[in-house]
Amino acid sequence: MKVAVVGLGLIGGSIAVDLRKAGIASQLVGVDLNSLHANKAVELGLVDRIEPEDKALSTSDMVILAIPVGAICALLPSILDVMNRHAVVIDMGSTKSQICKAVSAHPNRSHFVAAHPLAGTENSGPEAALAGLFRDKVNIVCEREKSSEQALHKATLVFQALGVKTIYMEPEEHDRHVAYVSHLSHVSSFLLGQTVMDIEKDEKNIFELASTGFASTVRLAKSSPDTWAPIFEQNSEYLGQALMEYIMHLQKFHYHLMKHDSKEIHRTLARANEIRRVLEGIELKNPVKVLRQD
Amino acid sequence: MKVAVVGLGLIGGSIAVDLRKAGIASQLVGVDLNSLHANKAVELGLVDRIEPEDKALSTSDMVILAIPVGAICALLPSILDVMNRHAVVIDMGSTKSQICKAVSAHPNRSHFVAAHPLAGTENSGPEAALAGLFRDKVNIVCEREKSSEQALHKATLVFQALGVKTIYMEPEEHDRHVAYVSHLSHVSSFLLGQTVMDIEKDEKNIFELASTGFASTVRLAKSSPDTWAPIFEQNSEYLGQALMEYIMHLQKFHYHLMKHDSKEIHRTLARANEIRRVLEGIELKNPVKVLRQD
Repeated sequence: MKVAVVGLGLIGGSIAVDLRKAGIASQLVGVDLNSLHANKAVELGLVDRIEPEDKALSTSDMVILAIPVGAICALLPSILDVMNRHAVVIDMGSTKSQICKAVSAHPNRSHFVAAHPLAGTENSGPEAALAGLFRDKVNIVCEREKSSEQALHKATLVFQALGVKTIYMEPEEHDRHVAYVSHLSHVSSFLLGQTVMDIEKDEKNIFELASTGFASTVRLAKSSPDTWAPIFEQNSEYLGQALMEYIMHLQKFHYHLMKHDSKEIHRTLARANEIRRVLEGIELKNPVKVLRQD
Repeated sequence: MKVAVVGLGLIGGSIAVDLRKAGIASQLVGVDLNSLHANKAVELGLVDRIEPEDKALSTSDMVILAIPVGAICALLPSILDVMNRHAVVIDMGSTKSQICKAVSAHPNRSHFVAAHPLAGTENSGPEAALAGLFRDKVNIVCEREKSSEQALHKATLVFQALGVKTIYMEPEEHDRHVAYVSHLSHVSSFLLGQTVMDIEKDEKNIFELASTGFASTVRLAKSSPDTWAPIFEQNSEYLGQALMEYIMHLQKFHYHLMKHDSKEIHRTLARANEIRRVLEGIELKNPVKVLRQD
């Protein structure tokens, strides 16, 4: 099977590594508009060779799209136009509604599988590629019923190679959940970094004083704007809601702080502490009640 | 030298481990109002034994305060009342203005060294104690000129045992800087955790979808409310300013998001990306200009 990975950055590069290990591809070719990334990916052995986009898309049995979500929306219909009848195209985008909409009426829609394996790091480019990046992580597939059995079968080979656990959601449901659990985290981190840099004009202070948790909280602020700006734009509705909720929580906390309301400040932090239990996956008998206790 | 560590949690416990390794203390005694923590600290070998507060404070050559900042303010004057003439008391609190004010007029002020070694984890209690927690981190000492040479000399033995790099600031300057670089990070994390839990009523969703950076962004939300609520209260003025700046940045981003202003969204993220360079300590020729470029 000839597999083309379009976009040889953190995500595409990591997928290529896992696909090679799994031995799925007889030919593993790469496509990247950035010739530095393309050359680097070959040099690192992520793909066998680079092919021109047209050739790779029309001659591959499987196309994996690991490019910014705006580019996925723009490119996907034309891929479905030119690809082989038996081929499958799988996207790895962090939004799903606009991508699914872009091909909803396409005659070859069934050759497409809309996926989102939830993993990443704050690094980007082919050098950021990691074997096993997605292992044991969740992969969300949307509109499963619109993909052919053949396409889903081929996609499953990829998901197995990545070691992900696949769950199914509607595109809107996906976008709403990731707005809170992923996209809002990135916004909070980007803007925290920006706020601190705006105020602490002397960067030496930030560098020296950053050991108290700041570094982990702003880790995501190092993420690629080329990747994240289109994600935020495509998910602006749900992300906008999530952001307003977050701002409201911050404003409420600010109010308690200004009123020196010790009890409320302590209560807010104690409730937020519940996240430890959630992230450790420990279930209490009545978690919602615990979450909501006043 | 008999050393008393008051507060046997993450900070006090970690300091006790490093002091023991350095061989400074001939007797290392612990004080903790929480008898479970006290017993655990002895069991873990963090301290030789537990002593009642009165006895420990009046008979030790060095007292290290690693308790919540509100408790430091309350206890510090009475420690200076009862302690030996040659003894030193060093606090490890994350705020400095109110603590320094609490003893500014005390006749034994010179026996006190106001310190803040900047390190920690999101865990708490004696089990969270780590050897080398503070190694190569920054330690801020305030009002150095108000401490006697003898007190500073003894404190230096502790700082050497911890492996910190000591810098000097005025208490207000300290509180202003840490409001941005430490306290705001904690608030952003606590409230992000709260926001996501408020919306995602089904905790399973949070747990399953949390691999995309959420976990690191809310790591600090696991921190102890007993430690952090008093810190936020004591630093409410500077933290309130920092929080308002953060909220304004978030609101501005929300505005760009709602306007679908791709250029501004991308520009915001690209500017936030500068934090990578800052945290890696790479200096450009004209960092402030780069930060400010529009």
